[in-house]
Amino acid sequence: MSKSFPHRHLLDIERLSSADLEAVLDLAKRYGEQNRSSTRKSDVLQGKTVVNLFFEPSTRTRASFEIAAKRLGADVINVLVEHSSARKGETLLDTVLNLDTMNIDAIVIRHPETGVPHFVAPQTKASVINAGDGTGEHPTQALLDAFVMRRRKGSLKDLTVAICGDIAHSRVARSNMHLLNKFGVKVRLIAPAYFMPKNPENLKAEIFEDMAKGLQGVDVVMMLRIQHERLTEGEFAVSLKEYHSRYGLDHKKLKAAKTDVIVMHPGPINRDVEISSALADDPQFSVIREQTEAGVAIRMAVLDLLLH
Amino acid sequence: MSKSFPHRHLLDIERLSSADLEAVLDLAKRYGEQNRSSTRKSDVLQGKTVVNLFFEPSTRTRASFEIAAKRLGADVINVLVEHSSARKGETLLDTVLNLDTMNIDAIVIRHPETGVPHFVAPQTKASVINAGDGTGEHPTQALLDAFVMRRRKGSLKDLTVAICGDIAHSRVARSNMHLLNKFGVKVRLIAPAYFMPKNPENLKAEIFEDMAKGLQGVDVVMMLRIQHERLTEGEFAVSLKEYHSRYGLDHKKLKAAKTDVIVMHPGPINRDVEISSALADDPQFSVIREQTEAGVAIRMAVLDLLLH
Amino acid sequence: MSKSFPHRHLLDIERLSSADLEAVLDLAKRYGEQNRSSTRKSDVLQGKTVVNLFFEPSTRTRASFEIAAKRLGADVINVLVEHSSARKGETLLDTVLNLDTMNIDAIVIRHPETGVPHFVAPQTKASVINAGDGTGEHPTQALLDAFVMRRRKGSLKDLTVAICGDIAHSRVARSNMHLLNKFGVKVRLIAPAYFMPKNPENLKAEIFEDMAKGLQGVDVVMMLRIQHERLTEGEFAVSLKEYHSRYGLDHKKLKAAKTDVIVMHPGPINRDVEISSALADDPQFSVIREQTEAGVAIRMAVLDLLLH
Repeated sequence: MSKSFPHRHLLDIERLSSADLEAVLDLAKRYGEQNRSSTRKSDVLQGKTVVNLFFEPSTRTRASFEIAAKRLGADVINVLVEHSSARKGETLLDTVLNLDTMNIDAIVIRHPETGVPHFVAPQTKASVINAGDGTGEHPTQALLDAFVMRRRKGSLKDLTVAICGDIAHSRVARSNMHLLNKFGVKVRLIAPAYFMPKNPENLKAEIFEDMAKGLQGVDVVMMLRIQHERLTEGEFAVSLKEYHSRYGLDHKKLKAAKTDVIVMHPGPINRDVEISSALADDPQFSVIREQTEAGVAIRMAVLDLLLH
Repeated sequence: MSKSFPHRHLLDIERLSSADLEAVLDLAKRYGEQNRSSTRKSDVLQGKTVVNLFFEPSTRTRASFEIAAKRLGADVINVLVEHSSARKGETLLDTVLNLDTMNIDAIVIRHPETGVPHFVAPQTKASVINAGDGTGEHPTQALLDAFVMRRRKGSLKDLTVAICGDIAHSRVARSNMHLLNKFGVKVRLIAPAYFMPKNPENLKAEIFEDMAKGLQGVDVVMMLRIQHERLTEGEFAVSLKEYHSRYGLDHKKLKAAKTDVIVMHPGPINRDVEISSALADDPQFSVIREQTEAGVAIRMAVLDLLLH
Repeated sequence: MSKSFPHRHLLDIERLSSADLEAVLDLAKRYGEQNRSSTRKSDVLQGKTVVNLFFEPSTRTRASFEIAAKRLGADVINVLVEHSSARKGETLLDTVLNLDTMNIDAIVIRHPETGVPHFVAPQTKASVINAGDGTGEHPTQALLDAFVMRRRKGSLKDLTVAICGDIAHSRVARSNMHLLNKFGVKVRLIAPAYFMPKNPENLKAEIFEDMAKGLQGVDVVMMLRIQHERLTEGEFAVSLKEYHSRYGLDHKKLKAAKTDVIVMHPGPINRDVEISSALADDPQFSVIREQTEAGVAIRMAVLDLLLH
């Protein structure tokens, strides 16, 4: 907890001020440049212990946090709870309390249930970083998205951002909406009824069911990952092909947006479901790889700010 | 193997002298203080390689050893054999011999079969540390328990310690009995017949089937973890509720003990089975979190003594 | 990519020159000596990030690469894809591309499909090291085998090497044949018809179905691991016992070879299937443990050469 960042935990975007967010983004800019240089490693967190406590598997997010912490000189302990005491029936809180006694500095936690990071944070002396909780938040994802938008567009000010897909179940969407609202960005939500959050009129966003209309004149399109089973089972079941034809982003649909539009996706991509494979790989529009790169810099900045 | 610790391996408590045990406890005291300070990391084991070779999953013990080794500057390699060559049918000994060729310094081994650490130790140049073998021993657990008792009670001398629960199958109980006997501590064993070791009259301990009697005037109660299937299946099957009512420790039963009694548990806890949730979390009696904290310090001391 | 090693990746033995191979072997010699000393660790790769990306579990190879990288001061990130985004349907290439964005230096990749390392290498800025691809190659295994042969026999020149067992499916055999051919070693292949590669007359090797004849006067016997299901199922099914009696190497069969013959095996061993347990453990002939030791030195040399 530094002077410039008056928080001990990073649980969500919702409770951060725009000044807090800018502190992360500014420091991440420096780490992003450093990561591209040959002197990527420092000893800023020398002697600190960071625990990655994942109750869901994840290649990308876990590796990103692990690389971030190690680049700063911290020791990293990976704990994937699928394979461990969960079998013995230990409670979530006991797992955290046990790790807490080991004089660790940060717990990066991912959990399939919403609110778990908020629940454990008051119980530990360590800084808790939410790496995704159920349908709650995924704050470092929203920060890295903002990082890329700012780099690409100069500033978040005056942008119009469309978020498309399974918004109802997406912690990425939720964190992004909080962040974009704090910077006064115009947000549009585009989704079929079954993927739209309940009472969308309460959100600071324009609501679209028609993709062509929703994409009209936007600066940024943020596609969300579709979980297949949500689409193809249940009351509103549609085929993946049918979904792709109505809500999958491709070059043709993208023509409605500004000519310098950028296309984002938190990954992992379902190629030719929510986004066409050709567009995902088109460097003229797609900034998907920049997003994963920015993830390391953002996580370095967050760890640095929280642990000092 | 240092002058003050004339062993290359830590296989069990049974073959250690009380001077050996005190050497570990004394060094752990220093590391315990260091772990609470901001300069927790040193380079005492710089350049050494420690392999965590676990044939059973374990969050707590593996993380504790990993943190301990990294705090001393060692490199740590985690090998969980469920997911690896075991599938290809490699023998246990071949797995150890292969790691041994890689010029490593220590193998921390956990295995579901009793005696495995003793079996492999003569075959490797590395120091072997038993992190729990079947129903054999779990020496670092007994050491950390002694560490907490000494800190709380000043000395082990003149204490009366009750060990309660599934004693027959507990490597924790076995290691603790050896250790406590070496320090002349009065040990009581409290358990129903089906959880009492065979021929308990051969043990240096008083035997109780009745909990109220066994707890009378004790300084320390050490509750053991119950494996559900041992209770609820087989000849003596009882419900968890019934077990809790007879052998689960709670504030009421604890009144038989001394007023300054401390309550220990090696974890993970089955809340409201062998111990009431309220008592496990009551800082007036429960030292369970101190035990996991002490685990890191004990393992640092053990690694330091064995690898020098 | 150094002057002495004009490659960015290590994908196979096939495309390396004998000068390249000797550069690795010479540097590995130095690291092998260093590994046996007390100053095993250096900072040659300080600040570098090495990712072990394994799509198949492996204790030995993963641990060997991890120890090698850490001994050189690199940070190591382990990614076992069984447990991660593979479940979410992310493509192999997307997994690699995502890791690539994180400014990493090397990807050590093992994959059950042949050709995967060659497929991903052009897509990443990192050095790709093939740690075994399907029935393709396993170049560091062939290098470590050559390392041991050179140490034991002085030089590869004028040796006769018999490779025995399931040659058709063995990436180890394939890499070894390429390497041995480059050094002008006389290679013999000994296998039943169902384990012999198709069109063996195209290989630079003498072909034997009879083990006694094939072993006549050889300097080195390299036994291959048998996958049980390949033997005991399908058209040519034989019992393991029957296989052992015809193609399992033991002291008796070995008498056909030179008196100073050495016996190699890439591990893990199926004791008393492709090799008798007694012979595998006989230090007069078996160099199996030297092979795993050499593995660390070879991988240190490869990482050093590729990342400079």
